[in-house]
Amino acid sequence: MAARFDPEHLSAAFSRVRDLSLALAEPLEPEDQCIQSMPDVSPTKWHLAHTSWFFETFVLAGPDFAPYRSGWDFLFNSYYQTVGEMHARPQRGLLSRPTVSEIQSYRRWVDERVLELLARGASDAQLRLVELGLHHEQQHQELLLTDILHVLSANPLAPSYRREPRAPSPSEAQALRWIEDPGGLVEVGRDLDAPAAGFGFDNEGPRHKRWLEPFAVASRPATCGEYLAFMADGGYRRPQLWLAEGWDTVCAERWTAPAYWRAADPSDTDPSDTDPGSWSIFTLDGQRPLGLDEPVTHLSYYEADAFARWSEARLPSEAEWERVVDGVVRARAGTDLRATANLLPLTGEGLASAALHPEAASLREADDETSGLAQVFGEVWEWTASPYAPFPGYRAPPGAVGEYNGKFMCNQMVLRGGSCVTPADHVRVGYRNFFHAPKRWQFTGVRLARDLS
Amino acid sequence: MAARFDPEHLSAAFSRVRDLSLALAEPLEPEDQCIQSMPDVSPTKWHLAHTSWFFETFVLAGPDFAPYRSGWDFLFNSYYQTVGEMHARPQRGLLSRPTVSEIQSYRRWVDERVLELLARGASDAQLRLVELGLHHEQQHQELLLTDILHVLSANPLAPSYRREPRAPSPSEAQALRWIEDPGGLVEVGRDLDAPAAGFGFDNEGPRHKRWLEPFAVASRPATCGEYLAFMADGGYRRPQLWLAEGWDTVCAERWTAPAYWRAADPSDTDPSDTDPGSWSIFTLDGQRPLGLDEPVTHLSYYEADAFARWSEARLPSEAEWERVVDGVVRARAGTDLRATANLLPLTGEGLASAALHPEAASLREADDETSGLAQVFGEVWEWTASPYAPFPGYRAPPGAVGEYNGKFMCNQMVLRGGSCVTPADHVRVGYRNFFHAPKRWQFTGVRLARDLS
Amino acid sequence: MAARFDPEHLSAAFSRVRDLSLALAEPLEPEDQCIQSMPDVSPTKWHLAHTSWFFETFVLAGPDFAPYRSGWDFLFNSYYQTVGEMHARPQRGLLSRPTVSEIQSYRRWVDERVLELLARGASDAQLRLVELGLHHEQQHQELLLTDILHVLSANPLAPSYRREPRAPSPSEAQALRWIEDPGGLVEVGRDLDAPAAGFGFDNEGPRHKRWLEPFAVASRPATCGEYLAFMADGGYRRPQLWLAEGWDTVCAERWTAPAYWRAADPSDTDPSDTDPGSWSIFTLDGQRPLGLDEPVTHLSYYEADAFARWSEARLPSEAEWERVVDGVVRARAGTDLRATANLLPLTGEGLASAALHPEAASLREADDETSGLAQVFGEVWEWTASPYAPFPGYRAPPGAVGEYNGKFMCNQMVLRGGSCVTPADHVRVGYRNFFHAPKRWQFTGVRLARDLS
Amino acid sequence: MAARFDPEHLSAAFSRVRDLSLALAEPLEPEDQCIQSMPDVSPTKWHLAHTSWFFETFVLAGPDFAPYRSGWDFLFNSYYQTVGEMHARPQRGLLSRPTVSEIQSYRRWVDERVLELLARGASDAQLRLVELGLHHEQQHQELLLTDILHVLSANPLAPSYRREPRAPSPSEAQALRWIEDPGGLVEVGRDLDAPAAGFGFDNEGPRHKRWLEPFAVASRPATCGEYLAFMADGGYRRPQLWLAEGWDTVCAERWTAPAYWRAADPSDTDPSDTDPGSWSIFTLDGQRPLGLDEPVTHLSYYEADAFARWSEARLPSEAEWERVVDGVVRARAGTDLRATANLLPLTGEGLASAALHPEAASLREADDETSGLAQVFGEVWEWTASPYAPFPGYRAPPGAVGEYNGKFMCNQMVLRGGSCVTPADHVRVGYRNFFHAPKRWQFTGVRLARDLS
Repeated sequence: MAARFDPEHLSAAFSRVRDLSLALAEPLEPEDQCIQSMPDVSPTKWHLAHTSWFFETFVLAGPDFAPYRSGWDFLFNSYYQTVGEMHARPQRGLLSRPTVSEIQSYRRWVDERVLELLARGASDAQLRLVELGLHHEQQHQELLLTDILHVLSANPLAPSYRREPRAPSPSEAQALRWIEDPGGLVEVGRDLDAPAAGFGFDNEGPRHKRWLEPFAVASRPATCGEYLAFMADGGYRRPQLWLAEGWDTVCAERWTAPAYWRAADPSDTDPSDTDPGSWSIFTLDGQRPLGLDEPVTHLSYYEADAFARWSEARLPSEAEWERVVDGVVRARAGTDLRATANLLPLTGEGLASAALHPEAASLREADDETSGLAQVFGEVWEWTASPYAPFPGYRAPPGAVGEYNGKFMCNQMVLRGGSCVTPADHVRVGYRNFFHAPKRWQFTGVRLARDLS
Repeated sequence: MAARFDPEHLSAAFSRVRDLSLALAEPLEPEDQCIQSMPDVSPTKWHLAHTSWFFETFVLAGPDFAPYRSGWDFLFNSYYQTVGEMHARPQRGLLSRPTVSEIQSYRRWVDERVLELLARGASDAQLRLVELGLHHEQQHQELLLTDILHVLSANPLAPSYRREPRAPSPSEAQALRWIEDPGGLVEVGRDLDAPAAGFGFDNEGPRHKRWLEPFAVASRPATCGEYLAFMADGGYRRPQLWLAEGWDTVCAERWTAPAYWRAADPSDTDPSDTDPGSWSIFTLDGQRPLGLDEPVTHLSYYEADAFARWSEARLPSEAEWERVVDGVVRARAGTDLRATANLLPLTGEGLASAALHPEAASLREADDETSGLAQVFGEVWEWTASPYAPFPGYRAPPGAVGEYNGKFMCNQMVLRGGSCVTPADHVRVGYRNFFHAPKRWQFTGVRLARDLS
Repeated sequence: MAARFDPEHLSAAFSRVRDLSLALAEPLEPEDQCIQSMPDVSPTKWHLAHTSWFFETFVLAGPDFAPYRSGWDFLFNSYYQTVGEMHARPQRGLLSRPTVSEIQSYRRWVDERVLELLARGASDAQLRLVELGLHHEQQHQELLLTDILHVLSANPLAPSYRREPRAPSPSEAQALRWIEDPGGLVEVGRDLDAPAAGFGFDNEGPRHKRWLEPFAVASRPATCGEYLAFMADGGYRRPQLWLAEGWDTVCAERWTAPAYWRAADPSDTDPSDTDPGSWSIFTLDGQRPLGLDEPVTHLSYYEADAFARWSEARLPSEAEWERVVDGVVRARAGTDLRATANLLPLTGEGLASAALHPEAASLREADDETSGLAQVFGEVWEWTASPYAPFPGYRAPPGAVGEYNGKFMCNQMVLRGGSCVTPADHVRVGYRNFFHAPKRWQFTGVRLARDLS
Repeated sequence: MAARFDPEHLSAAFSRVRDLSLALAEPLEPEDQCIQSMPDVSPTKWHLAHTSWFFETFVLAGPDFAPYRSGWDFLFNSYYQTVGEMHARPQRGLLSRPTVSEIQSYRRWVDERVLELLARGASDAQLRLVELGLHHEQQHQELLLTDILHVLSANPLAPSYRREPRAPSPSEAQALRWIEDPGGLVEVGRDLDAPAAGFGFDNEGPRHKRWLEPFAVASRPATCGEYLAFMADGGYRRPQLWLAEGWDTVCAERWTAPAYWRAADPSDTDPSDTDPGSWSIFTLDGQRPLGLDEPVTHLSYYEADAFARWSEARLPSEAEWERVVDGVVRARAGTDLRATANLLPLTGEGLASAALHPEAASLREADDETSGLAQVFGEVWEWTASPYAPFPGYRAPPGAVGEYNGKFMCNQMVLRGGSCVTPADHVRVGYRNFFHAPKRWQFTGVRLARDLS
């Protein structure tokens, strides 16, 4: 059995991940934890309960199992049709009960039983489900932060998530370079039969061949300054730059800038006003001046695509992205590129000094001096040109766990990398994140690519 | 100056009313106090803040006044265009901040200053505004309870508002009698120039003449048992019984019973199932069996009207209602009919034993033995056939206070009486409550009337 | 039997009314007659068919009756639940079949049978239903014209209804005078037991007493010029002038002027731009310059009410309106005030020279020199302050005909008078028209009133 | 220059295509040609006008060109932002003018000028645009038929498009066989630099390499009988069979069968009622009994995908589809597989005997006896598993023509093949059709595929 299934290792991981969720909620008042500011958002306390429900339902439940509370399975099932009916997603914000404190008790109850099970000796299947549950919880840690950002942004008082906001590190973006690749017949995706490789979701495999034409990708994500140049050049007013559905969305939603950008003078919504001083941005530390060298974030796919078209470039395919990053990772085997990336710390102690926002960066330690490739993990999830579809030969696992990924493979786009609020050990080369094209409340940005031929 | 404007009297009233609002919120967790379960509902904490904002803005504010917190006026203004812009009503449930505890501090801050002003000597205008603010707060006390009932009803766990639910008093409804009146040229409405009569809202006057044809009104509101007979006779399936907009609403909303009625078997929504055992009702004490002798409540105007048509009766006009009730009140001068009615107690101590739901009642002390007229104050607000319109000669007062009533005089129907959650001293013969015809979340019921000619 | 029930008289009236409907549709292409430009609008051909269905269903149908075509009753029933199910109103524009030509054949088929019945000898009930059917058809003649106005207005080509547009008569509005009335206990409404009085709808009675305070009404409707002054004074930007629902509608619909007003420069929607040259108006004769002396029309109730408030006046109640007009009508007994009013001609020949739009008017023959009362019939329907409610003692007739009026007595406002597209013999003192407060596609205007005390 | 650009050849093609559009509209009344039964549908006359606008704008317009009518460019531009603003798509059904007859005149005017230009000598660019315009018009011929099917289906009278409905040919479906392919590195897509290959849209290229794993595709599309078995097995009631968005759509739209299927007893919407006698289908020849051996059609992508999952198969990728069909086409070089397929005839004469609906088919001449591959052209468009995305190296052409395809490459799925209403010379191996996953009003069906490894 792989080291990752060693019960002691798993117990430690379990405690660490579960503790971090509570640490993330700690700066919040009970009132903050109930709000659902749009259907995509879940209340903080729902995240805390749902992740516990996952362990209760998939790890603890069995023939003689008495659930913690009757009716809670209905409230805290997200979308697993296999295990029963569920509360309607857009109504998660209507639930004042159970309270935050009752959910904390629920968490403790689940934690004790899972740890006891691990100590007592869990089955192989249970060990795998505990591991899955931890990765699941890490996904919800990121959502908890992006959701609370949206909740707080809906409040005219513009409250900060952190009690003690942290000033952004002053830094300059490195000059943009193009990293070239000859393409050819490549292998991408995860080898599902090589468990030594560590954990991966089912959707990351199987490993398969792709033919790539010669291409280049940008050494770093686009910055706010570069995006302002797009805006200044009529980016939000020229339909020719946009996908048809993107342009419809710009018109219907009256977009004139990325999400969370705020004009100094709200009545001045002229999207070509690119005096940087005219803009501020709402962050987990409240509202602050826009940093021109920071990676631009809170872009929809449509905006990433239009910006790329205006840049006379395009978005990379996920295979191209993986190919380039994989090369660097292999070349620097032994260095954990994630260690110095702008990611979410794994323990509560680290939170105070974490950026929790993309940062301007000259070359970091995590970046590759040879190739110049920078900021692939952390900062912003990078929209790719690839629709979220199954890899050849993909089959969803049987049972409820099979609903985890496969049933969403339609009308979404793949993002690669990781963001400033992704738990630091939750990123990997093959990770496939996915969102609908118009969504902007995640930390989503853009790395350009282009054809070489 | 009328006794009601004696500063000491007003100070005592102020303290009592303000305390009751807190007492009403006391059984609630902070999480309960943030939820807006539909656009008509406001969160509990918003009620607590808005009623304080009213005093801050209309009584305390002046040339050198520093508001408690910048930005709060925007959040807690309900609809007073005269004093500035306001947060959109349907988004009151998006505000996690200020917290419940911060709003309690705000209340204390306002209370201290108002009491100090009363002690120090307030102007006549200020005294009148304090009085208005108390009546305003009493309206919000009723809304706080009906809103929290809706919030809790949206939770599949069906939580109770009161920690210790109170069992309904077993009692039988009195037999229905008809109270006749010869009509003629009558005077109704409040004499705005006779302040001795105590407080009244601007919309209750001026006093004016109406011609009434001979009519009769029922001695008590209709009961759940009587309403079940309507349902059993196809009440919700016969368009001929309904106003056109009522029938459209029945179809669109799939109404098969009053609001908060719940079928024992949710898949059985056959509206003619009138086995009383098939129905329970959600109350401030949680879900409980339907009481057949209780006044039927949570009816829309459409349902009240259809029930009346089915009963071969009609709804009373507000002038008819006032005429009959006024007669009894005058006949029993010296007896406070409100003292023994099913109304909301005026202090927190009374809450534990209050009904907080309409009750079956044989003749109460509050009722009139001679005429048989019963339950006019308390139990349920009674829909009248009168659209909410200005009385002849009505003019809205100048300034923000003029927005209180006048601007709503369109597309609403008048209700008379009072309900089990109306503060006991907040009802009077001439009180004009008003809601839109499809609304059902208030304690609204029906008293029948008919022509005598 | 009254002369109006003489079969020969009725046959002639039948032919005249039925012919006028066809004459109204004559300028239209088949394509024009299918369109439903909003849910309130019905296609021309639907009006032609529905009015025929009315005679087929209520006059011709009986035990052995074979309907003209199976399935057409479903399509052409408007809202009579008593006689069966019906096609959804908002989907009337989806019906390409039956074609205009097929509907014309249907009309002929119905006409032959009704005329034959009248010749052969119809029952009393049938004679009354024929008469009702004709008044019903006249209502649809007005709707046909207001609906086609809306249909054509939705076309960027701005086509004219009439092939040969007629130039507006140049004329000045008379100076506004106030006509005073002492009020008191008055009788209004139709005496339903006095059939000699000619036809009236059930909702016009019974005759009943009202008490009126002294009041005055304006001698003529407000003009476009007067309304422009309201706009120039910030009419559409000052919430204090509006009912709450009116202001919500102004904001939601972005109203800046009455319906069909078009700014010369569409990008200039500044509602205070009251240079008359900046505005044109879309009419049944296409787009033309706004006539400042014409009665303002296509106002919602909200706009009429806000304009009245700005004018330091109010809208008249329907009793006040009826009281004043009735006085003049009685005083001038023998003169048919309708003969020279701006109403719809009763035969196709008159259509070419009809105004089909409100006209500026110095005193017409139809007006009363003594009182100065002008333009009460014709020009525009006049919003009153009276919600549409049953008169005391009103009871809807039994059966389907009882659905004609009674079930709409909720959430609508009464209008009195008649408009430039009301058939000339379809107006009378006691006529109660009614529409929802936000509606603007009828020829609706405003006559001011005020209290005298 | 390729033969296809010979002006004489092009003139003949022009006349033939333009005539067919008129022939397709010929059975329709003017009333039929105005209706827009949902936003996706355009009125017949709009198709006739828009296809003419295409030639007027892209071929005829130039420096001194006077457009046919001012304002029509606004009405009949579909989505070409480059050439100006356009009328909102969902409002195409509000245009009664220009009439059908005026649009026919417009067509003649355009036809004369284009033919004259071809006779006089057109530039190379103009010849290419004429060719593009013809292929564009053929697309609209298919849309005209699928749109009018939807329009007629919205009419409770269930009218037939054809005056003389044609009985379906009685025939049995062939037994389903699996056609295997070893995969490997294949080339697909159109070689844009090899114009000898005839016309193709920009989105069909460039030719590029793909790696395929071994796979098999079904020899023919699935039949109604096979689909009924899926329904009988709870197909529409088991969320596990569906993509998440598919299941949401099933619930929201209450789908229980493919579009245009009608239960014999409308109140019986039990989706597992698979007695074939319980179902009929609405076709261009009106309503008729469901043919069990006919290819199932009017499926959304979601239904095709769920059916495939239930069948323990999957949808083919577009590369797999092209690979297999291309093989057969090459093997049978010299035989025009389209000649005997169930496609739309190219002239009006053929319309009377055309199927205009998918037909049950034992092996046709168009099918391949060796492989068994049948019905690849004609019958139904076949949903593939491929999101509509640019092929590697794709670049949209400059100018308005570049808006033709590229800007729709998001959130749609590729379909391959052709349908019973696709013009017979408008299909080809590399043709990429595309629709959104929930759309059902096209003739869309499903051919299964599966992995061989």
